[in-house]
Amino acid sequence: MQLSASIRTVRRFPDRQSADDVLAVEEPLEIRIDGDPLAVTMRTPGHDEDLAAGFCWTEGVVDHPDQIERVSPCTQAQFGNVVDVILADDVRQSRSRHVDAARRELYMSSSCGLCGTSSIERIRKRVQPFQGKFSIAASMLKELPMKMQAGQHAFALTGGLHAAAWFSEEGELQLLREDVGRHNAVDKLAGAMLLSGQLAERPGVLLVSGRVSFELIQKAARARLPILAAMGAPTTLAVDAAREFGMTLIGFLKPDGRFNIYADSGRVGINDAG
Amino acid sequence: MQLSASIRTVRRFPDRQSADDVLAVEEPLEIRIDGDPLAVTMRTPGHDEDLAAGFCWTEGVVDHPDQIERVSPCTQAQFGNVVDVILADDVRQSRSRHVDAARRELYMSSSCGLCGTSSIERIRKRVQPFQGKFSIAASMLKELPMKMQAGQHAFALTGGLHAAAWFSEEGELQLLREDVGRHNAVDKLAGAMLLSGQLAERPGVLLVSGRVSFELIQKAARARLPILAAMGAPTTLAVDAAREFGMTLIGFLKPDGRFNIYADSGRVGINDAG
Repeated sequence: MQLSASIRTVRRFPDRQSADDVLAVEEPLEIRIDGDPLAVTMRTPGHDEDLAAGFCWTEGVVDHPDQIERVSPCTQAQFGNVVDVILADDVRQSRSRHVDAARRELYMSSSCGLCGTSSIERIRKRVQPFQGKFSIAASMLKELPMKMQAGQHAFALTGGLHAAAWFSEEGELQLLREDVGRHNAVDKLAGAMLLSGQLAERPGVLLVSGRVSFELIQKAARARLPILAAMGAPTTLAVDAAREFGMTLIGFLKPDGRFNIYADSGRVGINDAG
Repeated sequence: MQLSASIRTVRRFPDRQSADDVLAVEEPLEIRIDGDPLAVTMRTPGHDEDLAAGFCWTEGVVDHPDQIERVSPCTQAQFGNVVDVILADDVRQSRSRHVDAARRELYMSSSCGLCGTSSIERIRKRVQPFQGKFSIAASMLKELPMKMQAGQHAFALTGGLHAAAWFSEEGELQLLREDVGRHNAVDKLAGAMLLSGQLAERPGVLLVSGRVSFELIQKAARARLPILAAMGAPTTLAVDAAREFGMTLIGFLKPDGRFNIYADSGRVGINDAG
């Protein structure tokens, strides 16, 4: 049984008492493709299949959800920290090419140019233009942080986990995932959508608990989630990339209804904004 | 001129007004060893030499500060996003071995075993035991978050940057560095200490603005900073590693004097804790 939270004895100040504290678990996870090691990430155990599928998808290891046949825990791994992504028959024939390309892509995505513009250009090739007139009401946005918080069970215990949540156009919580890593939380969410066949035509809103870096925009774009709202601040490169990709980026979303639109306000309906 | 903060026009809600917002800059930085590419990290520009030196040191690329002769920006790089770490003469002879070992080490440190225990074991080989009876007063700790905040100039502008600060035993701020990445902020601080010859025998306190992952414990241990205080939560693996390495780990440090000691309370003097 893998736990996402675990107890350590601590000494609390100023009362100097020993007490049990519940901490977010951090453990390495190895992701394999048809048995071949691809990457290791430090993550919070739980929803490992979602994480592996989401990682492969948002990092461009696979180009389409159908290319993943299934994701299985490696039963021979002693500590349960290995998952294997099994590719579909039609891509399995070119497996070594896929894995090689994936490793190259992972290397390149972390060395994707020596300025922000070239970083964006590299990712752009793998991001399809967003289509459709999907939009959300500004008045609905302010309710999302509270709704997400109600689902952050591991954070409530530990105070040490990021969350990524997927909401419908009407503001209903569809899926929520937690992890010590911001990027892992988004990968778990994207993977859960992928594995459960919930890649919606009306993609709703992706809400993240922290800040937004370039990497998060890359992952959201690959996961076909054009509206990203964050409770924290975006970076310059996140804003520039979101604008280039035609995404909507909302930052500093507060429960009192304050927020900033950093990219493409066309998808936020303001008629009812209060 | 590289900036750590930059302006983007945003639309603020609920008043729906356009406004200029100051954001944390995020750009790639390539770190080279004697001209050979080693790694690329997404960072906030500024103190790039500190970052490169600190990265090489905390990740085990060099074993001793003296092995770095100097760190220079690559003047041929168009956007100023390349720095070159020049090794000292005595290690330059074995440069290729050093760079190969460094690359292997970077790979291994991200695939350092398939459970937390093996992750800790891998790093332990590169962490010298901490010696000396260095200690700090519990009553001094609560003042550190406010002192750090006073020096977080880029955070004050953007709300989107992590900080790492080095305080003396008496609670005086010695150095402070900011970055979009938690790990980069610590590397910048460690590099600044290294390049300025301020690796103290009495190492003081490292304070970080966010949470503490295994990676941060690894970096602090390599940087010979045995007391790590954080305003956020540690993970299980951070606590376990700190205990294994004989470090002192303080979490949830609040300005009102509350905090938890997660590892080795022997260095926190409580006689005057209020």
